[in-house]
Amino acid sequence: MIATGITVEYNPFHNGHLFHLREAKSQTGADVIIAVMSGQFLQRGEPAIVDKWTRTKMALAGGADVVIELPYAFATAHATQFAKGAIQLLDAAGCSYFCFGSEQGSIAPFTSSLDLISQHRQIYEQTIQQAMKEGLSYPNALRKGYEIISSDTSVELANLAEPNNILGFQYMQAAREIQSSMKPVTIERTGTHYHDTELPDHPIASATSIRKSIFSPDSDDDIHSFLPAASFQLLNDWQEQFEFQSWDKFYPLLRYTILREGPGLLSEIADISEGIEFAFFKAAKEQPTFQSFMQAVKSKRYTWTRIQRMLVHILTGCRASTRDKITEPAYLRLLGMSEAGRSYLQIAKKKLELPLVSRAASLSDPSLELDIKSTDIYMCGVRPDASLSGLDYRTPPILL
Amino acid sequence: MIATGITVEYNPFHNGHLFHLREAKSQTGADVIIAVMSGQFLQRGEPAIVDKWTRTKMALAGGADVVIELPYAFATAHATQFAKGAIQLLDAAGCSYFCFGSEQGSIAPFTSSLDLISQHRQIYEQTIQQAMKEGLSYPNALRKGYEIISSDTSVELANLAEPNNILGFQYMQAAREIQSSMKPVTIERTGTHYHDTELPDHPIASATSIRKSIFSPDSDDDIHSFLPAASFQLLNDWQEQFEFQSWDKFYPLLRYTILREGPGLLSEIADISEGIEFAFFKAAKEQPTFQSFMQAVKSKRYTWTRIQRMLVHILTGCRASTRDKITEPAYLRLLGMSEAGRSYLQIAKKKLELPLVSRAASLSDPSLELDIKSTDIYMCGVRPDASLSGLDYRTPPILL
Repeated sequence: MIATGITVEYNPFHNGHLFHLREAKSQTGADVIIAVMSGQFLQRGEPAIVDKWTRTKMALAGGADVVIELPYAFATAHATQFAKGAIQLLDAAGCSYFCFGSEQGSIAPFTSSLDLISQHRQIYEQTIQQAMKEGLSYPNALRKGYEIISSDTSVELANLAEPNNILGFQYMQAAREIQSSMKPVTIERTGTHYHDTELPDHPIASATSIRKSIFSPDSDDDIHSFLPAASFQLLNDWQEQFEFQSWDKFYPLLRYTILREGPGLLSEIADISEGIEFAFFKAAKEQPTFQSFMQAVKSKRYTWTRIQRMLVHILTGCRASTRDKITEPAYLRLLGMSEAGRSYLQIAKKKLELPLVSRAASLSDPSLELDIKSTDIYMCGVRPDASLSGLDYRTPPILL
Repeated sequence: MIATGITVEYNPFHNGHLFHLREAKSQTGADVIIAVMSGQFLQRGEPAIVDKWTRTKMALAGGADVVIELPYAFATAHATQFAKGAIQLLDAAGCSYFCFGSEQGSIAPFTSSLDLISQHRQIYEQTIQQAMKEGLSYPNALRKGYEIISSDTSVELANLAEPNNILGFQYMQAAREIQSSMKPVTIERTGTHYHDTELPDHPIASATSIRKSIFSPDSDDDIHSFLPAASFQLLNDWQEQFEFQSWDKFYPLLRYTILREGPGLLSEIADISEGIEFAFFKAAKEQPTFQSFMQAVKSKRYTWTRIQRMLVHILTGCRASTRDKITEPAYLRLLGMSEAGRSYLQIAKKKLELPLVSRAASLSDPSLELDIKSTDIYMCGVRPDASLSGLDYRTPPILL
C-alpha cells in the first residue's frame, strides 16, 4: 500500500484542507493519507480552537486515513524543529511521499534552493548569525542569508518570502537531513493566503479568517460555506458543550502564572531568554487583556508567534531543561484512523521505525508526558472542574 | 500614651471582636489599640473573604487605632511562628500590654504552664518528637508532651485542649522568648466557641458560623445582628463589586497550578514534605471541587489547616527557599490608623524598633515582596483582569 504524508493543524479543517488532501492523494496515487497533526497547542503559539480529538474527527471525515500526533515539543517549536519532527514521523510511518502546499507549486525551485545552500553553506550561515546579532528576527535573518547566496543565479529558486514556501522548504531540508527516501510533492495553494483575515467570495478561505469570524460575536459571516459539512457539525457540537479556545480565554490563567512565577522562575521556561521575562512580568501586572499584553511585550527582536510560543510554554509549565532533551520523535501516537488506515497499519506495523502508541498509558516517555500534560492544561481552560482531566489516558484512537 | 496590642484576622469583624477590643482597651487603660492583622491569607490556610484593606476599615470602625499587617510568612505559618511574628511586631510597635481571648480567662494558669515546661523542657520536647515520629499531628503531639509533664501538679494550668488557650499560650511563650516587657492580659471568651458553625440566639457568633451563613446561598440567616453596622456595610459594599473569596473560588487556579507544576516542583513549595505532593497531584487530576480535593488528601498525619496552608503556598508560589529565610518581622507595615493612632505613631515613631512602612515602595525586603505578591495572587481570584494588580503600591494607609 502506498502512503502519502501531510503535516497539518486543521484549526479548523476547511475546504482548502479538503482540496489539498484530495490532491495529495490523487497526485501521488496513494492508498492512504497519513496526517501528522499538532495537538492542543499550535505552531503559532496558540491553543487550538477545539481539541485534538475533535480535529482528528474532522481530518478523518475529510479523507485522512491515519492521524498521528505531532508531539508538543515539536508542534510548538520554531519552523525548523516543527518540520523536522513532522518529517521524521512521516518517514517512520512508512510514507512514500510527503506533500505540502506552497505558493510556488512545483518542487524544482525548492531542490535548487537546497542545492544552492549546501554549496554556499558557510557564507549562508555566517550571514544569518550576523543578522541575528544585529537584532533581526530569525525569519528575517534567514531571508537575508538566502538573498546573499541567491543574488547571482539564474535558476528558479523557492521564493522564501511566502509563508507556505518557507515551511515547504523546511520540510524538504529536514527530509534531506535524515536522508529520507520519501519523495516530495507540492500543491499550489490557490485562492487564499495564509495571513488572510477576511472571508473571500469563493469556498476556500484561510483558517485565520474562519477563526476570526468564529470569534466575532456580531459577525454575520456564514462560515458554513467554507467548511465541509462534517467540520461544521463538529464545531457546532463542540460549541454546544464548550467555548472555542483562544488566548483571550486563557489569559487569566497566563496572567496569574506569570505573577506567581516571577521573572526568576520564568527564565527557566523553554525558549525564554534575553530578559524578556521581565517584560512579561511587567505586562502581566498591567495589562487587562491578552491583546494588550502582546502589544506591551512585542518588539522588533521577536516575531509575534515566537512570543506566543514562549507564552504557551509558560502556560503549560514547560521548562527548557525538559523540552530541550527532546530532540527527535520517539513514538507514533495514533489519534485516529479510517478502515483503510487500519489496514495500512496492520501491514506496516512490523516495519514501523517507531513504536505505535494507541494508548497513552502504554509508553513512559518524557515527550509523551508533555503531550498528556498539555492536554490537561488545555482542558483547564475548557472546563475549570476536573471532568476533562486525564483525557489522553481515557480516549482511544478515533475510528471512522 | 499607653498602647495595647492584639492579634487579629477579622474575617469578618463581628460583635465578639468588638467586645474583645473594648475590653482590651478598658482593662489595660490603653489610649490606643494596636491590631496586628493578617493580610489576604489566613492562619487556617484560607483566603480571607474580603481583602485586607476592607478588613482594616472594619477594624478602625470597631475601635482599633493602628492596624499593622502580619506579614504573609507569619500569617500563614503554624501557630508557633504565627504567634512569634505577631508578638515581635506588637513589641516593636511599643505596646505596654498584649491582650488575647481565651477560654480560661486568666493569666496565672498560662504562666504556671510556661514555668512547668521550662522546668521539664527535656522530657517535654522528647515526648513531642517521639509522638510526631509515631505519626501524630503537631497539636496532638504537643498535647501529649503537655499531659506527661502536668500529670502530677496541683497548680491550675492552661487547658491546652481549647483552641484559644493554645494560641494564647503561644503568644505568652513568644513574649517570654524575646524577653518582651509587654504584660499579658486575657479576656474570657464567652457565648461562642471558635469552631461553632451554627449561629446562636445571642449577638456574639463565631466568624466560622458567620462565614458559613455568608456562603450558604439559600440561608435565611440574618447576619446583621452579629456584626457592627460598619462591618455589615463594608461586606455589602464589597459584595456589590466582587464576590466573597474562598477556596471554592480559588480551586480552578489551584488545580491548574498543581497540574502545571507536577510533584517535582511542588516539593519545593514551603511546608510541603514527605511525599504529600503526589497526593495533591493525583487529587488535582481527579477532584472537581475544593471540598472533594481536601477529602481526598486528608490524613491522620496532617491537620486540615496544615494541608490548607500548604495549598496557600502552592497558590502563591511561595517556595521553602524564600519563606524559610524570613525568620523575624523586619518592618511595621501600616494598613490604617485612627486620629489617636496617628498621634501615637507620631510620638512613638522615633523609638519604634522596626521601620514603619506606609508605602510598599519605600522598602525593598523579601518578606514585603511576599506580601505584595500574595495580594496580586489574591486579586487574580477577585478579578481576572489586571485592574486590581499592584494594589499594595497604590493603596495608602486607611485613615479614619
